[in-house]
Amino acid sequence: MPSLETYERGLDYSYAPGLFPSLEAMTKRPEIVRRLLLSSRSQESQGVQKLIELANANRIRVETADKALSRISGKDNCFAAAVFEKRPAKLENQDHIVLHHISDQGNLGTILRTALGLRYHDIAIIRPAADVYDPKVVRASMGALFSLRIREYEDFNEYRTEFPNHAAYPFMLDGSVQMDDAARDIKRPCSLIFGNEGAGLPHEFQSVGQPVRIPSSDEVDSLNLAIAAAIGMYAFRIH
Amino acid sequence: MPSLETYERGLDYSYAPGLFPSLEAMTKRPEIVRRLLLSSRSQESQGVQKLIELANANRIRVETADKALSRISGKDNCFAAAVFEKRPAKLENQDHIVLHHISDQGNLGTILRTALGLRYHDIAIIRPAADVYDPKVVRASMGALFSLRIREYEDFNEYRTEFPNHAAYPFMLDGSVQMDDAARDIKRPCSLIFGNEGAGLPHEFQSVGQPVRIPSSDEVDSLNLAIAAAIGMYAFRIH
Repeated sequence: MPSLETYERGLDYSYAPGLFPSLEAMTKRPEIVRRLLLSSRSQESQGVQKLIELANANRIRVETADKALSRISGKDNCFAAAVFEKRPAKLENQDHIVLHHISDQGNLGTILRTALGLRYHDIAIIRPAADVYDPKVVRASMGALFSLRIREYEDFNEYRTEFPNHAAYPFMLDGSVQMDDAARDIKRPCSLIFGNEGAGLPHEFQSVGQPVRIPSSDEVDSLNLAIAAAIGMYAFRIH
Repeated sequence: MPSLETYERGLDYSYAPGLFPSLEAMTKRPEIVRRLLLSSRSQESQGVQKLIELANANRIRVETADKALSRISGKDNCFAAAVFEKRPAKLENQDHIVLHHISDQGNLGTILRTALGLRYHDIAIIRPAADVYDPKVVRASMGALFSLRIREYEDFNEYRTEFPNHAAYPFMLDGSVQMDDAARDIKRPCSLIFGNEGAGLPHEFQSVGQPVRIPSSDEVDSLNLAIAAAIGMYAFRIH
């Protein structure tokens, strides 16, 4: 493996910065972890001891790399990072969360964490979109990334062609059915589809499956995307 | 009014940075707006024209203030800010959102926006907490602040003494009742109580009202606070 580079989309590996995201990588997907980077100031923490044990158990190389850590995380207090291989997953035939043109890294990470918390394990990302492997997304997801199956698609048709029988529920401000009514009568497996932070889903999603709306007050323009996605995922979850 | 200072908690006024938050201040609470600051580069936007009209209609002074805008917002592309007086509100005897020791400005702003979107209008903030009037909170709330009644309390007892008859629902990872079960049988008016990002609510809230838990997977440590609050507010909302 060559020396570690500043993260960019073209690399075939990325970084999970921070103790908790590194622990998630090492416990959930040790087979994709190539190295463990530690700060020279980090030896005494319990979390770091646990990381070193996991690395030893999985024969993962451990190295002290202060400069690389501050470069990767953009912070001086990042004590650990797992270097991991990107491996696109194959989605299973269960309920999917479909994220269409999501642009904010923090939103994307938060949505991944929420999805896992509400027991959705399959995530389709429709490009162009924030890079799901970006260390900022990994960090915002608190490592949830390592417990999910995630696949990026060039466009919505590519996704839809692979899963034509999923019941599609695009979330739109002007969706014709109220979300709770749709959830009472839900067909599974389903695709819950959420659009871009600013623009939402394009108008053509009005003719995809059953567009739904979240009942919210006229006093706000819209809900924050990660919030709307959480409410939608909660309403449609398997009880 | 003296010259504009960098925001700090001790000031009796604050700033709503950005077009949308300024518009919210000027339309919802023109009586508390002292001045409207504009960038010298902002004259042509429709939003700015609307702001100027509102200022004229409400006899609010308009001034060009490039340096103040970049200082207030920390950005070079902030085109407008309303300068507004802080006025603590009296909460009404309706459902309350109670935020206990919330420390993150972005979370606080997002929760305010979500509360308004789900039709909660009364917010109690238990100190120590992020400053609800901080321009970063105002911005993250997208100006929702100006449509809400918000009051800060020194501690939870001060709040509870003022509203002893509200049915209290503290949200806790080990709450004894599942949220949806509690929501089916909800007593109103209620206090939905959410704790700090890292620590949650202290253990003593186990004996306050009916502690509830959000059903979530063991695969995540917890949900992000703003996400958990959104799910809780959604489950307990008036239909």
